[in-house]
Amino acid sequence: MALPVPHENKVTIALDAMGGDHGVDVVVPAALRSLELHPDSLDLILVGDEGLLRTALEAAGHADSPHLMIRHASQAVEMGESPSQALRLKKDSSMRVAIDCVKQGKADACVSAGNTGALMATSRYVLKTLPGIDRPAIITTIPSRGGYTRMLDLGANVDCSAEHLFQFAVMGSVLAEALDGMKEPRVGLLNIGEEEIKGNDQVKQAARILAASELNYQGYVEGDDVFRGTVDVVVCDGFVGNVALKSSEGVASLIAYYMREEFQRNLLTRFAGLVAMPVLKRLRRRTDPRRYNGASLLGLRGIVVKSHGGADRIAFSTAIETAILEAAKGVPTMIDQRLDRMFSERQEP
Amino acid sequence: MALPVPHENKVTIALDAMGGDHGVDVVVPAALRSLELHPDSLDLILVGDEGLLRTALEAAGHADSPHLMIRHASQAVEMGESPSQALRLKKDSSMRVAIDCVKQGKADACVSAGNTGALMATSRYVLKTLPGIDRPAIITTIPSRGGYTRMLDLGANVDCSAEHLFQFAVMGSVLAEALDGMKEPRVGLLNIGEEEIKGNDQVKQAARILAASELNYQGYVEGDDVFRGTVDVVVCDGFVGNVALKSSEGVASLIAYYMREEFQRNLLTRFAGLVAMPVLKRLRRRTDPRRYNGASLLGLRGIVVKSHGGADRIAFSTAIETAILEAAKGVPTMIDQRLDRMFSERQEP
Repeated sequence: MALPVPHENKVTIALDAMGGDHGVDVVVPAALRSLELHPDSLDLILVGDEGLLRTALEAAGHADSPHLMIRHASQAVEMGESPSQALRLKKDSSMRVAIDCVKQGKADACVSAGNTGALMATSRYVLKTLPGIDRPAIITTIPSRGGYTRMLDLGANVDCSAEHLFQFAVMGSVLAEALDGMKEPRVGLLNIGEEEIKGNDQVKQAARILAASELNYQGYVEGDDVFRGTVDVVVCDGFVGNVALKSSEGVASLIAYYMREEFQRNLLTRFAGLVAMPVLKRLRRRTDPRRYNGASLLGLRGIVVKSHGGADRIAFSTAIETAILEAAKGVPTMIDQRLDRMFSERQEP
Repeated sequence: MALPVPHENKVTIALDAMGGDHGVDVVVPAALRSLELHPDSLDLILVGDEGLLRTALEAAGHADSPHLMIRHASQAVEMGESPSQALRLKKDSSMRVAIDCVKQGKADACVSAGNTGALMATSRYVLKTLPGIDRPAIITTIPSRGGYTRMLDLGANVDCSAEHLFQFAVMGSVLAEALDGMKEPRVGLLNIGEEEIKGNDQVKQAARILAASELNYQGYVEGDDVFRGTVDVVVCDGFVGNVALKSSEGVASLIAYYMREEFQRNLLTRFAGLVAMPVLKRLRRRTDPRRYNGASLLGLRGIVVKSHGGADRIAFSTAIETAILEAAKGVPTMIDQRLDRMFSERQEP
């Protein structure tokens, strides 16, 4: 399979229309929103139950659009389904068919809000990893003081060697260059500052490889640095990254809960809440996780974007936006070229 | 060395007065505050430079107090100093002497805001671990919807076996019983939900040991559960725990930063901020990390409490509060008895 080339002018994205908590009810409105945002440069393939899709499109008054195609798939991967089962038994699932579209060159990228494990396993099986990449990784953007930080891996790999962490750093760096137009993204390795000799063996060894590489490696960072914007790309294994991400979501939601409680305490605080409403709304918009929806599966020979399972229309179309950007830049090809160059440099005496 | 017995009526706490970012300037006022809170049931030993301590006490108008002793120590462990160096070269440091007070039975517990690595290494060297405990762990309380959650390990151990995780669970459970008066604290094992077969080998094996134990084991929890109050005790290895804790601090501080920015945007938002001030102050109080200061080093044959290095007077006296409670209950003895009982049960056919 040829690697995707950049599509600056026009991209086609396949959408797993049955995935996530809301399936068609979210994917169809999100698709229509994305088409409004890109009236001339975007084609979408809605993959899923044709009847359901037609009904949803008619209900939305968009029965016919030259930029919307429907591709029927007879099955759907359940949210709790095991990845191996999905891979073995759901060969005509909306998820699988959407990924097949990428493999066959019918789409430049695909987006799914389905089960992460199944999406990763299926993508890896269908698309394969890039030469030099042992394992794909999941990357997303996280808000920080300076803007945002990209962090990987977020759960695809629970035990990572130093070499894996290095590969993640290369992929994250390329993505930041491609999508954010950064010249030399600052890369940090997630570690802790408490242990006598910092960190575990994998991290320490990865630090040595990174320091000797051409990447703009800044050294160790700690959990709070992710949100401080100390670096542009934070590298860690998938267990740590997943826990960090989920913990952060937990804190944000706890603070929001406290805030609601405090403003609803009595008449006076309710009034204060009313006065502060516009400010609180802006704050909510800034911390709105929907603005950061869309994690990329990096290291594959194709572009796959994972939307949060509970994503709404806005959030899902943010994930489509990520896919469009990656397709426009040809991210897998960029990663491939970078790996190729770095690998040949490492081989030289 | 005999294990500390409960001291319900009167406890003596040794304070490393030179540790942390502020040393004497924080420890002395914090000590005076704690004595005000416990006028008849607390004795404090201030360990550090005698001259500095006398000056600070005189300045505070407390040159003489029957509940305050000074124990001179000629050295201080620096915040960046390596634990092994501190252990080898700083035998008369305020940290070491405070721990020695516990070892010698002169104090029921000690509190230090010094370098965590040095505190852990020195405590372990001087006090030794309890029988059946391979490695001490660091535990702290984390705010959650229901109140708070206790979480360990937070950075003492970067690579943990299943057996270590099990020991952490026992220690955390005993602490929750002792300090919070819980009957059967709910224990959760931190894991991720993304991988085909969840988690890594250590976590999976620990889950089996926990399920077969007498602990009130509730199964896997994810990062956001820590703040949701799903369980009372969350168990994880020190790398993951440290990153989760630091990430959470990072998010909380990012949200506070956003909030300040939003309320200072213009005259109108400043006015809204003024009106909402009492509510925001209550919110700040609820999320104030000083209320949660004081991490315990568990698994030692004595009580050692670690205060945050940057702690102020209030925060440091919160850490003293934790030490008082643990001393009053005789936490190491409770852990020892529990381990003894569980171990003999596991040995039986």
